[in-house]
Amino acid sequence: MRLATIDLFARPTCAVQLSGGGFLPVAAAARAMGLNEAALLEGGLQALIEGGPKSLEILGYLVASAEAGESSLAALVIKPNDAILLAPLPRPEKNIFCVGRNYAEHIAEGARAQNTNIAVTEVPVYFTKPRTAVIGPGAEIPIFPHVSTQIDYEVELAVVIGKPGRDIAKVDAYDHVFGYTILNDITARDVQRRHGGQYFKGKGLDGSCPLGPVVVTKDELADPQNAGLRLFVNGEQRQESTTAQMIFDIPTLIASLSEGLTLEPGDILATGTPSGVGYAMVPPSFLKDGDEVVCEIDGIGRLGNRVRSA
Amino acid sequence: MRLATIDLFARPTCAVQLSGGGFLPVAAAARAMGLNEAALLEGGLQALIEGGPKSLEILGYLVASAEAGESSLAALVIKPNDAILLAPLPRPEKNIFCVGRNYAEHIAEGARAQNTNIAVTEVPVYFTKPRTAVIGPGAEIPIFPHVSTQIDYEVELAVVIGKPGRDIAKVDAYDHVFGYTILNDITARDVQRRHGGQYFKGKGLDGSCPLGPVVVTKDELADPQNAGLRLFVNGEQRQESTTAQMIFDIPTLIASLSEGLTLEPGDILATGTPSGVGYAMVPPSFLKDGDEVVCEIDGIGRLGNRVRSA
Repeated sequence: MRLATIDLFARPTCAVQLSGGGFLPVAAAARAMGLNEAALLEGGLQALIEGGPKSLEILGYLVASAEAGESSLAALVIKPNDAILLAPLPRPEKNIFCVGRNYAEHIAEGARAQNTNIAVTEVPVYFTKPRTAVIGPGAEIPIFPHVSTQIDYEVELAVVIGKPGRDIAKVDAYDHVFGYTILNDITARDVQRRHGGQYFKGKGLDGSCPLGPVVVTKDELADPQNAGLRLFVNGEQRQESTTAQMIFDIPTLIASLSEGLTLEPGDILATGTPSGVGYAMVPPSFLKDGDEVVCEIDGIGRLGNRVRSA
Repeated sequence: MRLATIDLFARPTCAVQLSGGGFLPVAAAARAMGLNEAALLEGGLQALIEGGPKSLEILGYLVASAEAGESSLAALVIKPNDAILLAPLPRPEKNIFCVGRNYAEHIAEGARAQNTNIAVTEVPVYFTKPRTAVIGPGAEIPIFPHVSTQIDYEVELAVVIGKPGRDIAKVDAYDHVFGYTILNDITARDVQRRHGGQYFKGKGLDGSCPLGPVVVTKDELADPQNAGLRLFVNGEQRQESTTAQMIFDIPTLIASLSEGLTLEPGDILATGTPSGVGYAMVPPSFLKDGDEVVCEIDGIGRLGNRVRSA
């Protein structure tokens, strides 16, 4: 299933995308069908994820009913062009977990750009982005010229955790996955370097975490470790790779991150970016006012945002 | 005022500490006094902070009434020894902002221990700790021997944000402060080093963020930039300094962190630790099963936790 959060009468509302492209608000649909479990779906996508398999079962029933032409649902469906998509998890309940240096080609281009050696680490390198950075599809990525003049992009596959756990074994990792979405890890390179080598501040500015357009449940993405991902600036392809190129694959990331650290439903883990970022180009090319950045991952969709000088 | 979150009938409940030491649950007190605004106090300390000056006004009235002997409140007061304190913000809504390298003596001891140069950075170094790390006074700090054998302590003054803002000027910084608490930035030194120099994973393990015992409102801590802070392991003093020794003071930290990044009510900012940490001792001395760690900051109180091998 493809799950979105849409702006419905100025309220963030969880909706499921039907095969025709329309969006069915899930709580309203459950009420229209007179389901006892409607309350399970009232709390948005976060609560739905916390609801576990039961939520998905109800959702499956609603989708099947809508696609079978159930009349009480037809009137609820919002046409694709009329739906205003927000980030699927508009205010994640903790910072987003991110991984640095997870594609060899990206490490190599960084080493060239900085004229230094950047080692592949034995274990993944983690940092976080705060919820104030999260924006949805179509929202503007702000540039604050007094803070940074080197705003860069990074397309990444993001994993959404479904089942809580600590010390998760690699072999069990996918049991803890709810689904996948696209994350653009917007980075202020100058700020990132200035702050003593810690990534947080340069990766944490407002609007620096476009997320979406939907969360695709894990059953729907056949092989998350073999998905093409691309990024375009004003239509020009800048990044192009496949998640097969990750140094640490998804089970390794989940196992490593959860060592002594509990993962919770709704947690988001961005899995790193391939090569092609702006700062490593010769000459470097940073994002500027008016640029359109589009991230694309096969099986999930496209996440587009325009840059705006604030 | 001194604000706590206590475990009352197995529910986290916001309470204010009276001058006699007893704890008055604020929502129950507001109801007992028949206040229309009682609902403002129902949501715990997070909602109370979001309520702004109005919350504090009501609280002031409740405290004054209780201390004047108002009979409808007397029965609600929980004796100090009967109160089970939780972290004042038991599940912060985003990761805790932390600052590295903010006391010169701590930078110097780190450089000695690692036999390297560690520069004072031009701007503060930020990282975060997730909410799953937060534990309250008296709770056990777990050691996961399969994850780390080098668990260390760091006493820190933590600032709690009251008023939202971005690009906050130094001169306005204290307008955005709600109050202060104590934070023990428990750190797995081996994990910190292993993960490519990024602090997050080594600072983010479960139970690695003891917090409390109370949040002291800013009017109550006369000079937060001149408060003594100490840390004891099994009664032996290991850290001793004053917040006057910070390299970047509180207004500078708030101004720097909020550059292009919105701070929100309930955000917590730990301001760095002075010298005396275990890994810099000769020989290094890490925490072990059964150790009792007590943090102390003048004007706030004492935060004690015992270490337990998990």
